[in-house]
Amino acid sequence: MSVHVSERSVRRLSLYRRFLLHAQASGSCYLFSHDIATATRTSAAQVRRDLMAISSSGTASRGYHVADLLKSISHFLDAPAPQHVALIGLGNLGRAVFAYFVGRHPNLRITLTFDIDPAKTCRLINGCPCHNIHELNDLCPTHGIRMAILTVPATEAQTVTDMLVRGGIRGIVNFAPVTLYVPVGVFVETMDFSISLETAAFFSRA
Amino acid sequence: MSVHVSERSVRRLSLYRRFLLHAQASGSCYLFSHDIATATRTSAAQVRRDLMAISSSGTASRGYHVADLLKSISHFLDAPAPQHVALIGLGNLGRAVFAYFVGRHPNLRITLTFDIDPAKTCRLINGCPCHNIHELNDLCPTHGIRMAILTVPATEAQTVTDMLVRGGIRGIVNFAPVTLYVPVGVFVETMDFSISLETAAFFSRA
Repeated sequence: MSVHVSERSVRRLSLYRRFLLHAQASGSCYLFSHDIATATRTSAAQVRRDLMAISSSGTASRGYHVADLLKSISHFLDAPAPQHVALIGLGNLGRAVFAYFVGRHPNLRITLTFDIDPAKTCRLINGCPCHNIHELNDLCPTHGIRMAILTVPATEAQTVTDMLVRGGIRGIVNFAPVTLYVPVGVFVETMDFSISLETAAFFSRA
Repeated sequence: MSVHVSERSVRRLSLYRRFLLHAQASGSCYLFSHDIATATRTSAAQVRRDLMAISSSGTASRGYHVADLLKSISHFLDAPAPQHVALIGLGNLGRAVFAYFVGRHPNLRITLTFDIDPAKTCRLINGCPCHNIHELNDLCPTHGIRMAILTVPATEAQTVTDMLVRGGIRGIVNFAPVTLYVPVGVFVETMDFSISLETAAFFSRA
Protein backbone atom coordinates (compact mmCIF):
# COMPACT_ATOMS: atom_id res chain seq x y z
CA MET A 1 0.00 0.00 0.00
CA SER A 2 1.42 3.35 -1.00
CA VAL A 3 0.69 6.12 1.46
CA HIS A 4 2.23 8.96 -0.52
CA VAL A 5 -1.12 10.65 -0.76
CA SER A 6 -2.40 13.62 1.16
CA GLU A 7 -5.07 13.55 3.80
CA ARG A 8 -7.33 15.46 1.41
CA SER A 9 -6.89 12.88 -1.34
CA VAL A 10 -7.81 10.05 1.03
CA ARG A 11 -10.87 11.98 2.17
CA ARG A 12 -11.92 12.61 -1.44
CA LEU A 13 -11.39 8.96 -2.41
CA SER A 14 -13.62 7.97 0.48
CA LEU A 15 -16.27 10.44 -0.79
CA TYR A 16 -15.94 9.16 -4.38
CA ARG A 17 -16.50 5.62 -3.14
CA ARG A 18 -19.64 6.61 -1.29
CA PHE A 19 -21.02 8.29 -4.40
CA LEU A 20 -19.99 5.37 -6.66
CA LEU A 21 -21.79 2.91 -4.38
CA HIS A 22 -24.98 4.99 -4.67
CA ALA A 23 -24.52 5.33 -8.43
CA GLN A 24 -23.95 1.60 -8.82
CA ALA A 25 -27.07 0.85 -6.77
CA SER A 26 -28.97 3.14 -9.14
CA GLY A 27 -27.74 1.17 -12.14
CA SER A 28 -24.79 3.25 -13.41
CA CYS A 29 -22.11 1.17 -15.14
CA TYR A 30 -19.88 3.98 -16.41
CA LEU A 31 -19.31 7.50 -15.12
CA PHE A 32 -17.21 10.43 -16.29
CA SER A 33 -14.87 12.33 -14.01
CA HIS A 34 -17.18 15.34 -14.20
CA ASP A 35 -20.12 13.24 -12.91
CA ILE A 36 -18.06 12.20 -9.90
CA ALA A 37 -16.82 15.77 -9.47
CA THR A 38 -20.31 17.30 -9.47
CA ALA A 39 -21.60 14.80 -6.91
CA THR A 40 -18.65 15.30 -4.57
CA ARG A 41 -18.17 19.04 -5.09
CA THR A 42 -14.73 19.04 -6.58
CA SER A 43 -13.36 19.50 -10.11
CA ALA A 44 -13.13 16.89 -12.85
CA ALA A 45 -9.37 17.51 -13.06
CA GLN A 46 -9.05 16.81 -9.34
CA VAL A 47 -11.02 13.57 -9.68
CA ARG A 48 -8.74 12.46 -12.54
CA ARG A 49 -5.61 13.33 -10.53
CA ASP A 50 -6.84 11.44 -7.45
CA LEU A 51 -7.82 8.38 -9.47
CA MET A 52 -4.61 8.42 -11.47
CA ALA A 53 -2.71 8.35 -8.16
CA ILE A 54 -4.32 4.99 -7.41
CA SER A 55 -3.66 3.83 -11.01
CA SER A 56 -7.26 4.02 -12.19
CA SER A 57 -8.06 5.50 -15.54
CA GLY A 58 -11.16 5.89 -17.64
CA THR A 59 -11.65 6.18 -21.37
CA ALA A 60 -12.55 9.36 -23.22
CA SER A 61 -15.64 7.75 -24.74
CA ARG A 62 -17.23 5.96 -21.75
CA GLY A 63 -15.45 7.29 -18.67
CA TYR A 64 -14.69 5.08 -15.67
CA HIS A 65 -16.11 1.58 -15.20
CA VAL A 66 -17.91 1.95 -11.85
CA ALA A 67 -17.40 -1.58 -10.52
CA ASP A 68 -13.68 -1.58 -11.41
CA LEU A 69 -13.21 1.84 -9.91
CA LEU A 70 -14.92 0.76 -6.69
CA LYS A 71 -12.58 -2.22 -6.49
CA SER A 72 -9.51 -0.01 -7.00
CA ILE A 73 -10.58 2.54 -4.39
CA SER A 74 -11.44 -0.14 -1.84
CA HIS A 75 -8.17 -1.94 -2.50
CA PHE A 76 -6.37 1.32 -1.83
CA LEU A 77 -8.38 2.56 1.16
CA ASP A 78 -9.20 -0.58 3.10
CA ALA A 79 -7.05 -2.93 5.07
CA PRO A 80 -6.94 -6.50 3.69
CA ALA A 81 -8.72 -7.74 6.85
CA PRO A 82 -11.14 -5.83 9.12
CA GLN A 83 -9.36 -3.31 11.32
CA HIS A 84 -9.95 -3.33 15.04
CA VAL A 85 -10.88 -0.08 16.75
CA ALA A 86 -10.97 0.99 20.41
CA LEU A 87 -13.69 3.31 21.70
CA ILE A 88 -12.67 5.43 24.67
CA GLY A 89 -15.39 7.00 26.83
CA LEU A 90 -18.85 5.49 27.15
CA GLY A 91 -20.97 8.46 28.13
CA ASN A 92 -23.98 9.56 26.05
CA LEU A 93 -21.85 10.44 23.08
CA GLY A 94 -19.70 7.31 23.17
CA ARG A 95 -22.74 5.06 23.34
CA ALA A 96 -24.42 6.94 20.48
CA VAL A 97 -21.28 6.69 18.37
CA PHE A 98 -21.13 2.97 19.08
CA ALA A 99 -24.80 2.46 18.18
CA TYR A 100 -24.34 4.49 15.01
CA PHE A 101 -21.19 2.60 14.07
CA VAL A 102 -22.49 -0.97 14.31
CA GLY A 103 -23.32 -2.46 10.91
CA ARG A 104 -22.13 0.57 8.95
CA HIS A 105 -18.45 -0.12 8.56
CA PRO A 106 -17.80 -3.77 7.77
CA ASN A 107 -14.07 -3.07 7.53
CA LEU A 108 -13.84 -1.50 10.96
CA ARG A 109 -14.78 -3.24 14.19
CA ILE A 110 -14.99 -1.77 17.66
CA THR A 111 -13.48 -4.63 19.63
CA LEU A 112 -12.48 -2.91 22.86
CA THR A 113 -14.07 -0.09 24.82
CA PHE A 114 -12.64 1.80 27.77
CA ASP A 115 -14.01 4.05 30.47
CA ILE A 116 -12.87 5.34 33.83
CA ASP A 117 -16.22 4.80 35.57
CA PRO A 118 -16.21 1.50 37.53
CA ALA A 119 -19.98 1.21 36.94
CA LYS A 120 -19.25 0.77 33.24
CA THR A 121 -16.01 -1.18 33.28
CA CYS A 122 -17.45 -4.50 34.32
CA ARG A 123 -20.11 -4.63 31.62
CA LEU A 124 -20.57 -5.63 28.04
CA ILE A 125 -21.55 -2.67 25.82
CA ASN A 126 -23.14 -3.86 22.56
CA GLY A 127 -21.57 -7.22 23.24
CA CYS A 128 -18.15 -5.67 23.64
CA PRO A 129 -16.24 -5.73 26.94
CA CYS A 130 -15.58 -2.37 28.63
CA HIS A 131 -12.22 -2.11 30.36
CA ASN A 132 -10.70 0.32 32.78
CA ILE A 133 -8.86 3.02 30.90
CA HIS A 134 -5.63 2.16 32.69
CA GLU A 135 -5.57 -1.19 30.89
CA LEU A 136 -5.37 0.61 27.54
CA ASN A 137 -1.58 0.49 27.33
CA ASP A 138 -1.55 -3.30 27.62
CA LEU A 139 -4.71 -4.25 25.79
CA CYS A 140 -4.38 -2.21 22.59
CA PRO A 141 -1.05 -3.75 21.53
CA THR A 142 -2.25 -7.24 22.55
CA HIS A 143 -5.28 -6.89 20.28
CA GLY A 144 -3.29 -5.24 17.46
CA ILE A 145 -5.37 -2.09 17.73
CA ARG A 146 -3.89 0.99 16.05
CA MET A 147 -7.02 3.11 15.81
CA ALA A 148 -9.25 4.73 18.43
CA ILE A 149 -12.39 6.81 18.68
CA LEU A 150 -12.19 9.33 21.50
CA THR A 151 -15.45 10.33 23.21
CA VAL A 152 -14.14 11.54 26.56
CA PRO A 153 -14.72 14.98 28.12
CA ALA A 154 -12.55 17.82 26.80
CA THR A 155 -10.67 18.06 30.12
CA GLU A 156 -9.47 14.45 29.82
CA ALA A 157 -8.85 14.31 26.08
CA GLN A 158 -5.13 15.17 26.01
CA THR A 159 -4.24 12.83 28.91
CA VAL A 160 -6.11 9.97 27.25
CA THR A 161 -4.51 10.81 23.89
CA ASP A 162 -1.05 10.53 25.47
CA MET A 163 -2.05 7.11 26.82
CA LEU A 164 -3.32 6.08 23.37
CA VAL A 165 -0.09 7.12 21.70
CA ARG A 166 1.92 5.16 24.28
CA GLY A 167 -0.37 2.20 23.60
CA GLY A 168 0.57 2.23 19.90
CA ILE A 169 -2.50 4.00 18.49
CA ARG A 170 -1.71 5.74 15.18
CA GLY A 171 -5.13 7.04 14.09
CA ILE A 172 -7.62 8.89 16.32
CA VAL A 173 -11.09 10.23 15.58
CA ASN A 174 -11.59 12.79 18.33
CA PHE A 175 -14.99 14.12 19.41
CA ALA A 176 -13.68 16.26 22.28
CA PRO A 177 -13.71 19.99 21.49
CA VAL A 178 -9.96 20.49 21.95
CA THR A 179 -6.86 20.64 19.78
CA LEU A 180 -4.88 17.49 20.57
CA TYR A 181 -1.11 17.34 20.48
CA VAL A 182 0.34 14.15 19.06
CA PRO A 183 3.78 13.14 17.77
CA VAL A 184 4.52 13.10 14.03
CA GLY A 185 3.13 9.88 12.53
CA VAL A 186 -0.08 9.91 14.57
CA PHE A 187 -3.15 11.04 12.66
CA VAL A 188 -5.90 12.95 14.48
CA GLU A 189 -9.22 13.87 12.97
CA THR A 190 -11.33 16.11 15.21
CA MET A 191 -15.09 16.04 14.74
CA ASP A 192 -15.54 19.57 15.97
CA PHE A 193 -19.24 19.92 16.56
CA SER A 194 -18.92 23.18 18.52
CA ILE A 195 -16.98 24.97 15.80
CA SER A 196 -19.38 23.66 13.14
CA LEU A 197 -22.35 24.85 15.17
CA GLU A 198 -20.89 28.33 15.64
CA THR A 199 -20.02 28.56 11.94
CA ALA A 200 -23.51 27.46 10.85
CA ALA A 201 -25.09 29.83 13.39
CA PHE A 202 -23.06 32.72 11.99
CA PHE A 203 -23.99 32.08 8.37
CA SER A 204 -27.62 31.31 9.19
CA ARG A 205 -27.92 34.99 10.18
CA ALA A 206 -26.16 36.31 7.09
CA MET B 1 -22.70 42.58 11.40
CA SER B 2 -20.37 42.30 8.44
CA VAL B 3 -20.41 38.91 6.75
CA HIS B 4 -17.68 39.59 4.22
CA VAL B 5 -15.55 36.90 5.75
CA SER B 6 -14.91 33.40 4.52
CA GLU B 7 -16.18 30.24 6.13
CA ARG B 8 -12.60 29.42 7.08
CA SER B 9 -12.14 32.74 8.84
CA VAL B 10 -15.30 32.21 10.88
CA ARG B 11 -14.15 28.73 11.80
CA ARG B 12 -10.74 30.03 12.86
CA LEU B 13 -12.26 32.87 14.90
CA SER B 14 -14.38 30.30 16.70
CA LEU B 15 -11.22 28.26 17.42
CA TYR B 16 -9.31 31.36 18.60
CA ARG B 17 -12.15 32.11 21.02
CA ARG B 18 -12.06 28.63 22.47
CA PHE B 19 -8.31 28.90 23.02
CA LEU B 20 -8.58 32.43 24.46
CA LEU B 21 -11.21 31.28 26.97
CA HIS B 22 -8.86 28.52 28.15
CA ALA B 23 -5.93 30.94 28.26
CA GLN B 24 -7.97 33.49 30.22
CA ALA B 25 -9.05 30.81 32.70
CA SER B 26 -5.35 29.96 33.16
CA GLY B 27 -4.56 33.59 33.99
CA SER B 28 -3.27 34.99 30.66
CA CYS B 29 -3.95 38.73 30.24
CA TYR B 30 -2.00 39.33 27.01
CA LEU B 31 -1.11 37.00 24.15
CA PHE B 32 0.86 37.41 20.94
CA SER B 33 -0.46 36.31 17.56
CA HIS B 34 2.10 33.51 17.49
CA ASP B 35 0.76 32.13 20.81
CA ILE B 36 -2.73 31.98 19.32
CA ALA B 37 -1.35 30.55 16.08
CA THR B 38 0.55 27.73 17.80
CA ALA B 39 -2.46 26.70 19.87
CA THR B 40 -4.81 26.69 16.90
CA ARG B 41 -2.39 25.32 14.30
CA THR B 42 -2.27 28.24 11.94
CA SER B 43 0.28 30.98 11.23
CA ALA B 44 0.77 34.20 13.19
CA ALA B 45 0.19 36.17 9.97
CA GLN B 46 -3.14 34.40 9.49
CA VAL B 47 -4.18 35.19 13.07
CA ARG B 48 -3.31 38.87 12.56
CA ARG B 49 -5.25 38.98 9.27
CA ASP B 50 -8.32 37.34 10.82
CA LEU B 51 -8.27 39.64 13.83
CA MET B 52 -7.66 42.72 11.72
CA ALA B 53 -10.79 41.80 9.71
CA ILE B 54 -12.83 42.17 12.91
CA SER B 55 -10.95 45.39 13.79
CA SER B 56 -8.90 43.94 16.61
CA SER B 57 -5.26 44.79 16.92
CA GLY B 58 -2.53 44.13 19.42
CA THR B 59 0.62 46.00 20.27
CA ALA B 60 4.14 44.95 19.31
CA SER B 61 5.26 44.98 22.94
CA ARG B 62 2.41 43.15 24.72
CA GLY B 63 0.33 41.54 21.99
CA TYR B 64 -3.45 41.27 22.24
CA HIS B 65 -5.42 42.00 25.41
CA VAL B 66 -7.21 38.69 25.95
CA ALA B 67 -10.43 40.01 27.52
CA ASP B 68 -10.84 42.72 24.85
CA LEU B 69 -10.14 40.25 22.08
CA LEU B 70 -12.71 37.82 23.48
CA LYS B 71 -15.27 40.63 23.52
CA SER B 72 -14.52 41.55 19.90
CA ILE B 73 -14.70 37.96 18.65
CA SER B 74 -17.94 37.29 20.52
CA HIS B 75 -19.43 40.53 19.27
CA PHE B 76 -18.59 39.43 15.75
CA LEU B 77 -19.56 35.75 15.96
CA ASP B 78 -22.61 35.74 18.21
CA ALA B 79 -26.12 36.98 17.66
CA PRO B 80 -27.15 39.79 20.05
CA ALA B 81 -29.74 37.45 21.60
CA PRO B 82 -29.67 33.63 21.85
CA GLN B 83 -30.41 31.96 18.53
CA HIS B 84 -33.08 29.29 18.31
CA VAL B 85 -32.24 25.99 16.70
CA ALA B 86 -34.38 23.10 15.43
CA LEU B 87 -33.23 19.49 15.83
CA ILE B 88 -34.57 17.11 13.19
CA GLY B 89 -34.50 13.38 13.91
CA LEU B 90 -34.62 11.98 17.43
CA GLY B 91 -33.03 8.58 17.03
CA ASN B 92 -29.93 7.55 19.01
CA LEU B 93 -27.77 10.15 17.37
CA GLY B 94 -30.28 13.00 17.67
CA ARG B 95 -30.82 12.34 21.36
CA ALA B 96 -27.07 12.14 21.96
CA VAL B 97 -26.52 15.40 20.11
CA PHE B 98 -29.25 17.03 22.19
CA ALA B 99 -27.79 15.72 25.46
CA TYR B 100 -24.33 16.90 24.41
CA PHE B 101 -25.64 20.30 23.36
CA VAL B 102 -27.51 21.28 26.51
CA GLY B 103 -25.53 23.70 28.69
CA ARG B 104 -22.62 24.01 26.25
CA HIS B 105 -23.83 26.74 23.94
CA PRO B 106 -25.52 29.54 25.89
CA ASN B 107 -26.01 31.47 22.64
CA LEU B 108 -27.79 28.63 20.88
CA ARG B 109 -30.98 27.01 22.10
CA ILE B 110 -32.72 23.94 20.70
CA THR B 111 -36.32 25.09 20.99
CA LEU B 112 -38.06 22.75 18.57
CA THR B 113 -37.47 19.13 17.69
CA PHE B 114 -39.04 17.14 14.88
CA ASP B 115 -39.39 13.48 14.04
CA ILE B 116 -41.54 11.36 11.77
CA ASP B 117 -42.20 8.62 14.34
CA PRO B 118 -45.60 9.16 16.04
CA ALA B 119 -44.24 7.50 19.21
CA LYS B 120 -41.87 10.48 19.59
CA THR B 121 -43.98 13.33 18.32
CA CYS B 122 -46.28 13.60 21.30
CA ARG B 123 -43.51 13.82 23.89
CA LEU B 124 -41.21 16.32 25.50
CA ILE B 125 -37.53 15.56 24.81
CA ASN B 126 -35.25 17.29 27.35
CA GLY B 127 -38.19 19.56 28.12
CA CYS B 128 -38.60 20.47 24.47
CA PRO B 129 -41.71 19.55 22.45
CA CYS B 130 -41.24 17.11 19.57
CA HIS B 131 -43.41 17.83 16.54
CA ASN B 132 -44.27 15.92 13.43
CA ILE B 133 -41.82 16.72 10.68
CA HIS B 134 -44.63 17.94 8.45
CA GLU B 135 -45.19 20.87 10.81
CA LEU B 136 -41.67 22.09 10.12
CA ASN B 137 -42.69 24.50 7.36
CA ASP B 138 -45.11 26.32 9.64
CA LEU B 139 -43.33 26.15 12.97
CA CYS B 140 -39.80 27.24 12.04
CA PRO B 141 -40.86 30.64 10.64
CA THR B 142 -43.31 31.16 13.55
CA HIS B 143 -40.49 30.63 16.05
CA GLY B 144 -37.98 32.67 14.03
CA ILE B 145 -35.75 29.63 13.59
CA ARG B 146 -33.13 29.90 10.85
CA MET B 147 -30.80 27.13 11.94
CA ALA B 148 -31.21 23.35 12.16
CA ILE B 149 -29.28 20.27 13.20
CA LEU B 150 -30.04 17.30 10.99
CA THR B 151 -29.80 13.82 12.53
CA VAL B 152 -32.05 11.86 10.18
CA PRO B 153 -31.08 8.73 8.19
CA ALA B 154 -29.07 9.31 5.01
CA THR B 155 -32.00 8.22 2.84
CA GLU B 156 -34.22 11.01 4.23
CA ALA B 157 -31.63 13.76 4.50
CA GLN B 158 -32.16 15.50 1.14
CA THR B 159 -35.99 15.45 1.41
CA VAL B 160 -35.84 16.91 4.90
CA THR B 161 -33.26 19.48 3.78
CA ASP B 162 -35.62 20.65 1.03
CA MET B 163 -38.34 21.06 3.69
CA LEU B 164 -35.93 22.99 5.92
CA VAL B 165 -35.00 25.35 3.11
CA ARG B 166 -38.69 25.95 2.33
CA GLY B 167 -39.20 26.60 6.06
CA GLY B 168 -36.64 29.43 5.97
CA ILE B 169 -33.65 27.60 7.46
CA ARG B 170 -30.35 29.20 6.38
CA GLY B 171 -27.78 27.20 8.37
CA ILE B 172 -27.67 23.41 8.71
CA VAL B 173 -25.33 21.15 10.65
CA ASN B 174 -25.80 17.80 8.94
CA PHE B 175 -24.86 14.46 10.50
CA ALA B 176 -26.19 12.31 7.66
CA PRO B 177 -23.43 10.81 5.50
CA VAL B 178 -24.58 12.44 2.25
CA THR B 179 -23.75 15.49 0.19
CA LEU B 180 -26.76 17.81 0.51
CA TYR B 181 -27.88 20.13 -2.26
CA VAL B 182 -29.07 23.55 -1.13
CA PRO B 183 -29.65 26.87 -2.89
CA VAL B 184 -27.05 29.63 -2.74
CA GLY B 185 -27.38 31.47 0.58
CA VAL B 186 -27.96 28.32 2.64
CA PHE B 187 -24.95 27.14 4.62
CA VAL B 188 -24.43 23.41 5.19
CA GLU B 189 -21.79 21.93 7.42
CA THR B 190 -21.58 18.14 7.24
CA MET B 191 -20.16 16.30 10.23
CA ASP B 192 -18.93 13.42 8.16
CA PHE B 193 -18.09 10.72 10.67
CA SER B 194 -17.79 7.97 8.03
CA ILE B 195 -15.26 9.84 5.93
CA SER B 196 -13.29 10.80 9.05
CA LEU B 197 -13.27 7.19 10.22
CA GLU B 198 -12.03 5.90 6.86
CA THR B 199 -9.34 8.58 6.71
CA ALA B 200 -8.12 7.83 10.25
CA ALA B 201 -8.23 4.08 9.52
CA PHE B 202 -6.10 4.61 6.43
CA PHE B 203 -3.43 6.66 8.19
CA SER B 204 -3.42 4.45 11.28
CA ARG B 205 -1.96 1.73 9.03
CA ALA B 206 0.65 3.98 7.44
